[in-house]
Amino acid sequence: MSQTFSLAIDAMGGDAAPEMVLDGLELAAERHPQARFLVVGDEARIGPLLARRKRAAATCAIRHAPDVIPGEMKPTAALRQGRQSSMRLAIDAVAGGEAAGVVSAGNTGALMALAKIVIKTLPEIDRPALAAIAPSARGDVVMLDLGANIQCDARNLVEFAVMGDSFARAVLGLTNPTFGLLNVGSEELKGDDRVRAAAEVLKDSHIGAQFHGFVEGHDIAAGTVDVVVTDGFTGNVALKTGEGALKLMRDMLKQVFTSTIPARVGYLLARPALDRLREWMDPRRYNGAILLGLNGVVVKSHGGTDALGFAHAVDVAMDMVTHRFNDRIREGLSRLAGPVGAPAVIEPRLAAAGGR
Amino acid sequence: MSQTFSLAIDAMGGDAAPEMVLDGLELAAERHPQARFLVVGDEARIGPLLARRKRAAATCAIRHAPDVIPGEMKPTAALRQGRQSSMRLAIDAVAGGEAAGVVSAGNTGALMALAKIVIKTLPEIDRPALAAIAPSARGDVVMLDLGANIQCDARNLVEFAVMGDSFARAVLGLTNPTFGLLNVGSEELKGDDRVRAAAEVLKDSHIGAQFHGFVEGHDIAAGTVDVVVTDGFTGNVALKTGEGALKLMRDMLKQVFTSTIPARVGYLLARPALDRLREWMDPRRYNGAILLGLNGVVVKSHGGTDALGFAHAVDVAMDMVTHRFNDRIREGLSRLAGPVGAPAVIEPRLAAAGGR
Repeated sequence: MSQTFSLAIDAMGGDAAPEMVLDGLELAAERHPQARFLVVGDEARIGPLLARRKRAAATCAIRHAPDVIPGEMKPTAALRQGRQSSMRLAIDAVAGGEAAGVVSAGNTGALMALAKIVIKTLPEIDRPALAAIAPSARGDVVMLDLGANIQCDARNLVEFAVMGDSFARAVLGLTNPTFGLLNVGSEELKGDDRVRAAAEVLKDSHIGAQFHGFVEGHDIAAGTVDVVVTDGFTGNVALKTGEGALKLMRDMLKQVFTSTIPARVGYLLARPALDRLREWMDPRRYNGAILLGLNGVVVKSHGGTDALGFAHAVDVAMDMVTHRFNDRIREGLSRLAGPVGAPAVIEPRLAAAGGR
Repeated sequence: MSQTFSLAIDAMGGDAAPEMVLDGLELAAERHPQARFLVVGDEARIGPLLARRKRAAATCAIRHAPDVIPGEMKPTAALRQGRQSSMRLAIDAVAGGEAAGVVSAGNTGALMALAKIVIKTLPEIDRPALAAIAPSARGDVVMLDLGANIQCDARNLVEFAVMGDSFARAVLGLTNPTFGLLNVGSEELKGDDRVRAAAEVLKDSHIGAQFHGFVEGHDIAAGTVDVVVTDGFTGNVALKTGEGALKLMRDMLKQVFTSTIPARVGYLLARPALDRLREWMDPRRYNGAILLGLNGVVVKSHGGTDALGFAHAVDVAMDMVTHRFNDRIREGLSRLAGPVGAPAVIEPRLAAAGGR
């Protein structure tokens, strides 16, 4: 495919849009001078803002969209009423082959639903998955699914593993990323039929050598594997639980460092070192949830992020576009499946392993 | 019931047993001077150790057990081969009515299996659950299930909520503990049929006024509710993920505070304040996983803990015994069920709510 634009950008999504989005694009344009962005939104507002941002102006074209999908709108309503919204027209640009991907900081549920319906799932994939990158003791870790699929079967988990592998190669730049299936214990007999059946299939797959087996909750932050594969319910809870624990620790440290005069002085002395830690854990560095398995790249930026965070979300999308992420998924799935197509090969083996 | 002993103690379980256990009992005896402990294990080893610990000696009686269940033994093997083990004879003392509860730092799987089979589930309960106490921004939080039940239905979740409520009253000393069902979002439509059906039943139950509704992963550390109810798969992953995130942060701080000379000096100045934080988060304060729903109190101490941690596990068990935890559960379940018994009332309502 040779698209006119690298990415379509929903200029109106996010708490501080469109200013935040255009500031983010100014940063992104510096990092990706070859990129071409299609900025979709209210032309009367975007035009003057873009004119004042030199680098962004050089890489962006504007497409007018009269409407915006509000943050609280239900996906079904967004689908019916949002046909002229910035989000929808940005997604349409991907579906129509004009852009390779879309980035939006708008309504998550609407973005996921519209993207699935308009851009459509890759033919080889049963269900798309939501992925994100998190910090660990041994570098960045990819986690998926984070809530796109509340109930998953073994086949979904196998496909998530293949997509996670392609993602870690494209975005983290790893040659042979290791991956694990999230479970309640690392022994082979642990968990339910679903994870055990998925493990059986993955062990003998073309990425079997990278398969670490089952991992537990504490393995996420430990960085035991590069990719953590799980169902959307568990993944969503795990990601938010980890974020919550880190926030608790940060809040407690803030209290500690303001509790006494010596502690305040101690904080000032340790501050440069603490700032490096803060920078390393900066949520903006990990901004961007990625919907994998569609006929195009779809990245959701956090709605409350700033320009730096939005630029990071654009980085992730650009990495996926540049490294032909979707071609890698297709290749991975075809190797998993053999010449006769995925379901025909995977399903009987899953059935034999007790997973369907 | 008037048992001869408050608790039966498996003296041989845990990495540093039996010394660690007896040191723990020495601390526990000071806190609970009225308690009577039945210490089960190798009499030849325990006798001299106990004689040297004055307070423990005054509150403990020894029962000889020739065997020990090894840490790696499968539950099925423990059941067949462990009849003369310290763990089994301690459990037998509860089943036989001699002791109100048991504390062991031994093999988790064996303890859970033996306790379920020998002590037996309360007649009103479908399945026992594993609970623990975790720190949060707003005080201690009870979480259950943590892995006793990999697959749960709506009825199990409802029963877990009732048990969690009784537990928070008995051990945390709360009058009207709030509780929430762990889910991927807080809106009523989120999640699967199972959690939605459980929510429907809980809303109208006798503890409905304490029901906060759905909570998300980050609500655990935020302390949004006193009791977090979930299935064993999700709960196990969430607890370990949170612990892993806290460990990552502790390790990173250690690196920060040794990275430069000013940071080292800063650490020394802030140390008293940091020590209070460390104390507050001390895993030993949260030692003890509790198997709820059996005809007796069963507490599993971490195998790698020290005397202080073991004494905390004994504290939890003593709180449950003193505050008649099991009577509270029975009362709660009977109020949930009405005069005709739990299943007859809960099940049709769950069916109507789509949860079975």
